[in-house]
Amino acid sequence: MTTEERAKRGGEVIRSLNNGQPQPNLERMREEFPFLAEATEAYALGDVWSRPGLDTRTRQLAAVAAFAAIGETAFMKIHAGYALNAGVSEDELKEIVYMVTVPAGFPRAITAARTLSELFAERRP
Amino acid sequence: MTTEERAKRGGEVIRSLNNGQPQPNLERMREEFPFLAEATEAYALGDVWSRPGLDTRTRQLAAVAAFAAIGETAFMKIHAGYALNAGVSEDELKEIVYMVTVPAGFPRAITAARTLSELFAERRP
Amino acid sequence: MTTEERAKRGGEVIRSLNNGQPQPNLERMREEFPFLAEATEAYALGDVWSRPGLDTRTRQLAAVAAFAAIGETAFMKIHAGYALNAGVSEDELKEIVYMVTVPAGFPRAITAARTLSELFAERRP
Amino acid sequence: MTTEERAKRGGEVIRSLNNGQPQPNLERMREEFPFLAEATEAYALGDVWSRPGLDTRTRQLAAVAAFAAIGETAFMKIHAGYALNAGVSEDELKEIVYMVTVPAGFPRAITAARTLSELFAERRP
Amino acid sequence: MTTEERAKRGGEVIRSLNNGQPQPNLERMREEFPFLAEATEAYALGDVWSRPGLDTRTRQLAAVAAFAAIGETAFMKIHAGYALNAGVSEDELKEIVYMVTVPAGFPRAITAARTLSELFAERRP
Amino acid sequence: MTTEERAKRGGEVIRSLNNGQPQPNLERMREEFPFLAEATEAYALGDVWSRPGLDTRTRQLAAVAAFAAIGETAFMKIHAGYALNAGVSEDELKEIVYMVTVPAGFPRAITAARTLSELFAERRP
Repeated sequence: MTTEERAKRGGEVIRSLNNGQPQPNLERMREEFPFLAEATEAYALGDVWSRPGLDTRTRQLAAVAAFAAIGETAFMKIHAGYALNAGVSEDELKEIVYMVTVPAGFPRAITAARTLSELFAERRP
Repeated sequence: MTTEERAKRGGEVIRSLNNGQPQPNLERMREEFPFLAEATEAYALGDVWSRPGLDTRTRQLAAVAAFAAIGETAFMKIHAGYALNAGVSEDELKEIVYMVTVPAGFPRAITAARTLSELFAERRP
Repeated sequence: MTTEERAKRGGEVIRSLNNGQPQPNLERMREEFPFLAEATEAYALGDVWSRPGLDTRTRQLAAVAAFAAIGETAFMKIHAGYALNAGVSEDELKEIVYMVTVPAGFPRAITAARTLSELFAERRP
Repeated sequence: MTTEERAKRGGEVIRSLNNGQPQPNLERMREEFPFLAEATEAYALGDVWSRPGLDTRTRQLAAVAAFAAIGETAFMKIHAGYALNAGVSEDELKEIVYMVTVPAGFPRAITAARTLSELFAERRP
Repeated sequence: MTTEERAKRGGEVIRSLNNGQPQPNLERMREEFPFLAEATEAYALGDVWSRPGLDTRTRQLAAVAAFAAIGETAFMKIHAGYALNAGVSEDELKEIVYMVTVPAGFPRAITAARTLSELFAERRP
Repeated sequence: MTTEERAKRGGEVIRSLNNGQPQPNLERMREEFPFLAEATEAYALGDVWSRPGLDTRTRQLAAVAAFAAIGETAFMKIHAGYALNAGVSEDELKEIVYMVTVPAGFPRAITAARTLSELFAERRP
C-alpha cells in the first residue's frame, strides 16, 4: 500500500467517525506541518484506526480512557464525539471517566468530566 | 451501603475477575497499609469496578489502554490478565497496544507489548 | 459507615476547609456526573481528607506539592486556598513552589507560582 | 562565583537569546517569588544555559524537544523563539515536532505544532 | 555566596538529613557527571533544601508527596528515610501515601506503599 | 512509497545508526506484535528518522533530551548509543542530561545520568 492510499484510507476513517465530515484541525495543519498532517492521516488513522481487530465502539472507549488518563482533554473530546457518533451512549462515556479515577486520580477524571459536559451541551439541539 | 459491604463487594469483583482467587498484592498490603488496601477494595473495586454501565470486556480493555498510556505496566499486566479471564483474546489486547502508539507514543506501547508477551508466556500450559 | 454518612463527612471536610461554604465545582458536577461527585465527596474528602493522622496544615502543604508537581494547577489553587484558610502563610506556599523545582523542574514550579499569584490577588481585600 | 555573578551571567544569557531584551515573565516573578526568579536566572540560565559544551542551536533544539515531549508548550514557545533568534530555521523546528510523535505521541506533537504556528505568525512582519 | 560555599552548605544539609553520612549516590555521580553532582549539592540541597521557611518535617512530607505523585519512587525512598531521621513517624508517611491516591491515582500510591514497606523493613534492627 | 519500501528504509536507518546491525528488541517484537514492529520500522524509523531536515547528531541529541525528560531511559540508552555511533561525544550527552534538570527536574536527569554511565561502561574496551 502506498502512502497516498494509506492517507486516503485515513480520510475515510475520519469521515466514517465524523458524520461524513473532514476533521477541521487536521485540515488546518496540512499547510504548515504537512508531514504531521500526513502522519496523522496515513499512520494514526489510516494504519492504526482502520485495523479490524476492535469494533469502533470499543476502540473509541479505550481511546477516550487513554486520552483522559494522560490529561489530553482536547483529543479526548474529539474521540468522545466520534464515540457518540458510533452509538456509544453518554452514560458509557461517563463510566469511562469514573474508571479513570483509579489509574490516574481525581483531577484527570474531573477535568475529563467537565470536557464531556461541554461536548454533550454542544451536541444538544 | 457500609464500608464493610463495599469491601465485600470489591472482594467479589476481584474473585470474579481473577478466576475465584484473591489478589495477592492486595492481601500483602492489608497489614502494613490497611487504609490503602481498604480503599482499593471498597472504592476502586467495590464502587467503581462493580458498576453495571460497562461490560467486563469493555472496562478491562479501556483500563488496559489507560494503564499502558500512563506507563503503569505492572497494573496493566494484572488487568490484562483479568481481561483474558473474561474472554478477551490476546489479539484484542495487542490492538489496544497498537492504538496506544497514537495518544502516548512508541515507548509506552513497546513497553506494554513486552509486558503482554510476559503475561501470555506465563499463562501458556 | 454508610456511603451517605461518608458523603456527609466529606461535606463537613469541605466546609471546614472552605470557610463554611460548599465547593462550587463539586456542586456543578453533581447533576451530570453523580458518581464522580459522590466519589469526590465520600472517598476523597470523606475517607481520605478526614483522616486524623496529619494536621490540616501539613496535609494541605503536601497536597499542594503533589498537585504542583503533576501540573494540576487548578486543583493546586483550590487546595492552596484551603491551606490559607487553615492558617498556612503565603510564604510557606511559596516555599513549596521553590521545592517543586527539584522533583519536577522549573516549568511546573513557575506555572504554580503564577497560579499562586492569582490566588493571592483574588483574596486581597 | 557568587550568586550575584551567576544571576548576572544568567541575565546575559537571556539577553543573548532574546535579541537583547530581558524575559518579561521572569521580571514579573521577581517581586512575588524572588527565590524562583533568582533560581531561574542564576541556576537555569546562569549555570546550565551558559555552559559551553553545546552550541546554542543544538541546545535550543534539544530543549524544544524536551519541552514539547512533556507538554510544557508555553516554555517550548519561549525556547523556540530563542532558537529562531539563534538562526534555527522554522523547518528545523518543524522536524523536532515531527520527531516528538515517536517518543511522546501525536497529541503532544500536534499541540506543539499549533504553538509553533502561533509563534511563527507573531514574528511575521 | 560562592558556588563552593553553596555546595558546602548542601553537604551539611545532606549530613543533617542522613544521620551525619554523605549520600552515596551523589558521591558516585561526582566523577562522571560533576556538574550534576554540583547542581544537586549546591542548588537542590544547598539553595532549596537549606531555606528556613519550612521545618524539616513539613518539607520532607511535602517532598515525599511530590516524588510519590510523579512516580519517582527511588527518590521518594531516600526522602522518606530523611523524614524518618527527622522524627516523622511511619504512620505519617503512610498518610501521605493514602492522600496521593486522590491527586495521582492508585498505581502511584500502591507503588509508593511498597517502596515504604521496603524502607521500613531495611531500617528494622 | 509502499509500506514494504518504508519498512526497508527504516531497516536501513537502523543499520546506519547501529553500526550495520539490526536492533535486537525490534526483531524480537516482530513475531508476537507484527504491526508494532512494522510501525516502528516503517513509520518511526522509515518515515520520521529518515527525514533529511536534521543531521543525525542533532536529531539524536534532541531525541535523547526528549526520552530523558519523559523518563523513558531504556529508549534514551538506545538512542544515546546511536548518538555515540554518529560521532556525538560523551560530553555532549552529559550536557543534554544537565539541561534536562531545567524542564523535567533532578530525578529524571539523575536517572538519565546513571543510564549513560552504564552505556559508557558497556562500550569501553
